[in-house]
Amino acid sequence: MGSASIGYPFGISSRFDGKFNSRSEITVSSLPCKVDVSRNSFSSASSSTHKELSNARVCSLPNTDEYCDEKTETPILDSIETPSLLKNLSVKELKQLADEIRTELLSVLWKTQNSMNPSLAAIELTLALHYVFRAPVDKILWDAVEQTYAHKVLTGRWSAISSRQKNGISEVTSRSESEYDSFGTGHGCNSISAGLGLAVARDIKGKRDRVVAVIDNVTITAGQACEAMSNAGYLDSNMIVILNDNRHSLHPNMEEGCKASISALSSIMSKIQSSQIFRKFRELAKAMTKKIGKGMYEWAAKIDEYARGMVGPTGATLFEELGLYYIGPVDGHNIEDLVCVLREVASLDSMGPVLVHVITEENRDTKTGNKIVVKDRRTYSDCFVEALVMEAEKDRDIVVVHAGMQMDRSLVTFQERFPDRFFNVGMAEQHAVTFSAGLSSGGLKPFCVIPSAFLQRAYDQVVHDVDRQRKAVRFVITSAGLVGSDGPVQCGAFDIAFMSSLPNMISMAPSDEDELVNMVATAAYVTDLPVCFRFPRGSIVKRNYLVPIGLPIEIGKGRVLVEGQDVAFLGYGAMVQNCLNAHSLLSKLGLNVTVADARFCKPLDIKLVRDLCQNHKFLITVEEGCVGGFGSHVAQFIALDGQLDGNIKWRPIVLPDGYIEEASPNEQLALAGLTGHHIAATALSLLGRTREALLLMS
Amino acid sequence: MGSASIGYPFGISSRFDGKFNSRSEITVSSLPCKVDVSRNSFSSASSSTHKELSNARVCSLPNTDEYCDEKTETPILDSIETPSLLKNLSVKELKQLADEIRTELLSVLWKTQNSMNPSLAAIELTLALHYVFRAPVDKILWDAVEQTYAHKVLTGRWSAISSRQKNGISEVTSRSESEYDSFGTGHGCNSISAGLGLAVARDIKGKRDRVVAVIDNVTITAGQACEAMSNAGYLDSNMIVILNDNRHSLHPNMEEGCKASISALSSIMSKIQSSQIFRKFRELAKAMTKKIGKGMYEWAAKIDEYARGMVGPTGATLFEELGLYYIGPVDGHNIEDLVCVLREVASLDSMGPVLVHVITEENRDTKTGNKIVVKDRRTYSDCFVEALVMEAEKDRDIVVVHAGMQMDRSLVTFQERFPDRFFNVGMAEQHAVTFSAGLSSGGLKPFCVIPSAFLQRAYDQVVHDVDRQRKAVRFVITSAGLVGSDGPVQCGAFDIAFMSSLPNMISMAPSDEDELVNMVATAAYVTDLPVCFRFPRGSIVKRNYLVPIGLPIEIGKGRVLVEGQDVAFLGYGAMVQNCLNAHSLLSKLGLNVTVADARFCKPLDIKLVRDLCQNHKFLITVEEGCVGGFGSHVAQFIALDGQLDGNIKWRPIVLPDGYIEEASPNEQLALAGLTGHHIAATALSLLGRTREALLLMS
Repeated sequence: MGSASIGYPFGISSRFDGKFNSRSEITVSSLPCKVDVSRNSFSSASSSTHKELSNARVCSLPNTDEYCDEKTETPILDSIETPSLLKNLSVKELKQLADEIRTELLSVLWKTQNSMNPSLAAIELTLALHYVFRAPVDKILWDAVEQTYAHKVLTGRWSAISSRQKNGISEVTSRSESEYDSFGTGHGCNSISAGLGLAVARDIKGKRDRVVAVIDNVTITAGQACEAMSNAGYLDSNMIVILNDNRHSLHPNMEEGCKASISALSSIMSKIQSSQIFRKFRELAKAMTKKIGKGMYEWAAKIDEYARGMVGPTGATLFEELGLYYIGPVDGHNIEDLVCVLREVASLDSMGPVLVHVITEENRDTKTGNKIVVKDRRTYSDCFVEALVMEAEKDRDIVVVHAGMQMDRSLVTFQERFPDRFFNVGMAEQHAVTFSAGLSSGGLKPFCVIPSAFLQRAYDQVVHDVDRQRKAVRFVITSAGLVGSDGPVQCGAFDIAFMSSLPNMISMAPSDEDELVNMVATAAYVTDLPVCFRFPRGSIVKRNYLVPIGLPIEIGKGRVLVEGQDVAFLGYGAMVQNCLNAHSLLSKLGLNVTVADARFCKPLDIKLVRDLCQNHKFLITVEEGCVGGFGSHVAQFIALDGQLDGNIKWRPIVLPDGYIEEASPNEQLALAGLTGHHIAATALSLLGRTREALLLMS
Repeated sequence: MGSASIGYPFGISSRFDGKFNSRSEITVSSLPCKVDVSRNSFSSASSSTHKELSNARVCSLPNTDEYCDEKTETPILDSIETPSLLKNLSVKELKQLADEIRTELLSVLWKTQNSMNPSLAAIELTLALHYVFRAPVDKILWDAVEQTYAHKVLTGRWSAISSRQKNGISEVTSRSESEYDSFGTGHGCNSISAGLGLAVARDIKGKRDRVVAVIDNVTITAGQACEAMSNAGYLDSNMIVILNDNRHSLHPNMEEGCKASISALSSIMSKIQSSQIFRKFRELAKAMTKKIGKGMYEWAAKIDEYARGMVGPTGATLFEELGLYYIGPVDGHNIEDLVCVLREVASLDSMGPVLVHVITEENRDTKTGNKIVVKDRRTYSDCFVEALVMEAEKDRDIVVVHAGMQMDRSLVTFQERFPDRFFNVGMAEQHAVTFSAGLSSGGLKPFCVIPSAFLQRAYDQVVHDVDRQRKAVRFVITSAGLVGSDGPVQCGAFDIAFMSSLPNMISMAPSDEDELVNMVATAAYVTDLPVCFRFPRGSIVKRNYLVPIGLPIEIGKGRVLVEGQDVAFLGYGAMVQNCLNAHSLLSKLGLNVTVADARFCKPLDIKLVRDLCQNHKFLITVEEGCVGGFGSHVAQFIALDGQLDGNIKWRPIVLPDGYIEEASPNEQLALAGLTGHHIAATALSLLGRTREALLLMS
């Protein structure tokens, strides 16, 4: 089998609209698309061969134009209206269906330039799960949304995916979208905890449905997954955890040398291990030896472990120690094996939690998904990293710790420049924060880079290991505020509030890229207190921007950008730009308002705020965050200072009290009421120019 | 050796004030106190004997009066001014010192009725650590403050412990208190992360000090510990993790049957495993086989694991899988063994992270510590649990999930009544929250009970797995506000702010025990949204209280308790009582103010707030929480409603912007400015009666 024969049907399909009703008659030879079924038997090939194959595949990728012209029909997929219809298919047809789904997903991948690699890797697993289990009665929970596109295709959401309509399906799974989504997916690492809850609820309610949680090798590194497995092992409820391992190692530094264990032997042994006979024998042995006495029991358990250890990979005993019965590794692209193992597992009764280790290859179909990024403008992150590299050149104590679901590509620049001073800990935010506190105690200057929504995972560590102990950790809060297509899952709405309430925290936000560069310098300069600064995901303000040398800002010092009268806009962070936009709009209407850049939520520039109160009729605070943040800190001060006792009329503009769904950044800002138009209209209304306010918004 | 011969010197010491200078000449026989050195060789005794011994010990405990009259001298302890002086002692003298420290701690335990059991169990370990390592150059980090009293005794803080002065040492360890405290301890589970940070900083700085993190078997169950070990295994910096295991099992359900592995064999094997020869041989073998090829390498690693597995306990491989070199178990009361093992470990260079599993017996000295609780009044927690039991009798779907460092004793009532509907997951707050969301998805009504300060660990799960998905989880936030002697470590200052900013959350707080009972009923009644309510740690308002049947409160409905004029106090939660106190004080001065109980921070009773604004000159909001909480939500509404445009003068009273150290609850309230006197004085000042305000506060 030469590499060229692995010819995937790369042509895009214009979906076959008619239904294909005679499913059972489908044979591979009768299908119009080119499929080489033998690829499903790749498990016995060596890893070096894989590499060649996938390279070959990538080389043979057509360009986009060619691609869009090709058409492929998907007769089996068209016939599957609900997952229950899968049960009528033969294994051969399942394989064919996998190919059809792969073709479809690749077509969307091509169109949207969005990575569906994890979903491509999980196609066979998804099919096997829906083939063996009976969703929605049985509960299938996914941990990472990237895995779920095949699941979405099978559960009636295909057209929405392929068209990517604004009001179509979301990036996440949610109960409100489909009854097949047993629990919301999106923010990572929740599937085992939620699955255990469903399993315990089922037991208490006396039901008999099965619960399957699918976690991947990225999200399993989060502490919560460990807490959940440990608790699952203790509670001993029946549930199935699928570890969809598309890196095939839990230890990044042990990555090489592990691929080989996807072998014929392991495939066979997985089947043996999951067989009821083997399992029941083991339970029997356990029960017997328990009665005999603990010495014997321990010995028997040891023997059992060794016997199983001989065939299991490194990593197996970890799960066993936590109390999960380990089965695997199973070739995640071999539907026959998957179905066989899952059937055995599904038939087990009162056996406690089981972990099935499934090996998938993420890049077997395409290596290009993540790399097609059209970017015409530089982002705040780019500027941050460039500024930090400049600081790090001067100051050898500067180190970077990163945590979160995905690493911002910009950080690679720092990583490549200072590999020994860069620590990416993955989805281990709690650890990242305390680790940073330790680095600070050891005399270094850690910049701890975590997206706003993921910093929520480490709030307690920020409070007790950093703020209470006054450790000089510099929190770089990325993706602050609205995040466009990533919707509410990654929206950073709460950080201003939860960080600024901490007694020792210096809390700031740059209004543009120059300020960002200065805040990096400020954070490097402060050595006795924790600091945080937040910036949005989007593009910087200027074009053709050259990063200047950063200069530390005086702590707690804001600035007035435009002097005006009657109305003062006091913006925080990126919202200062929207205040400036509002200023422009109002200028055209003959109004000259003041625009100030607060820079600091804490310590607040009370002199600036007091001046604004004393020289204006209205103070409008604007922030891209929830109630309880910047505006609340301003209100606390001006109330106690007596400024609110008839001196100034204050209007706070904050994010609305709700989750804003996926949309373009501009659409989201409009939904949130945070555009320059909204801010200007608020000022006009306050001044009694209601008609102009309405005109502005129309 | 009969059990009676294990005679600990239980007599309290009046410390030997003169210094004992000729340390090297001390022998056991020359010491005035009665010591049976043979207890240190208990490691070879069987576990059943231990039980008899400790029972015998407990029976022979004198009562408090007798106890206070006895005196024991502590000559070696008196001579140890800094830990470095330990190096001059013989092992025999170390054993004697352990006994002296035990005597001293027991005397304080007796006086303060405070549990020092974990510290009593860690005495020999503490001595061995300070004997082998050179603090403060070498960094010793503790994970749980309960373990650290022997460490405090050895590092010059003894008099403060024994006198328990208000301004003496704190309950926690902190860098500001002693240079021997390498990192702050108190909130649990941070030692490995912080230690790894120190280790990496040391490597970057080119230093050679040693880092030792001591974690116990409770805190190691937190997800962060898992994240930290996994990252330590990856980064491969030299550090030593000591697992102080005083339960000897990571699996609560496997507790029985494990004690036996503290045996002579395991003691010997620990020594063998930690010997440089064994370790170096292993490293060599690894390096060699790596060159030969991965097949061989895996085989060699397997053989090595098996060889070591034969002598290690269940649990060993878990650490090995995470990348830590496991050594143990070591008898944590055998100083000779401890010193031997730690010396070997300390001498290892460039070997990556090592975990030493130390077994200690927490209750070997006394079983009474935790049980002496003087309580003349019932707490909010008691009422909560009684009310919840009543609801649970009616509604079979009610279940309880508890997480946090320690479980409130009150919850035992529920646990005993409904063992199958009670889930205590320990220090796994993240899991607890998502698990509750799963239980809710499965049709149950979970009450998730977590102290305010520990809920911070699960903030992200509250946001994404509960609030965003609108899961009906009922968060019961205990220890809300100030917590007296537990100081800032367990103070619940931030929860009103971080919970009330969530879009779907119903956020409430009872003003007294009747309201608490009604809020339990309300939470049980709400099935479509998440709910939280917070209550303080202290006593309820009334005496001889019988819990009534709870009645659901209308969501978002506050109430006026006293009608008055000019000034309206709007209290949230327990602070309503302080508002009522202020009312009483002002009544005596002829002022009749309004007192209202907000009940809800979210949804706010906007009708009530508007009425208060329209009928008063001043509105004073009072809460036991930080800026960004209740007052901020009120301000947001009254600003947008135009009430602040000259209609009402608003004054927010919140917790001060700082951490309030250990003190009595009343002292803390006074420090925070939250007493009835403070609130009344604020009203008087606003009304221009400054002199009366000052008199009130004097």
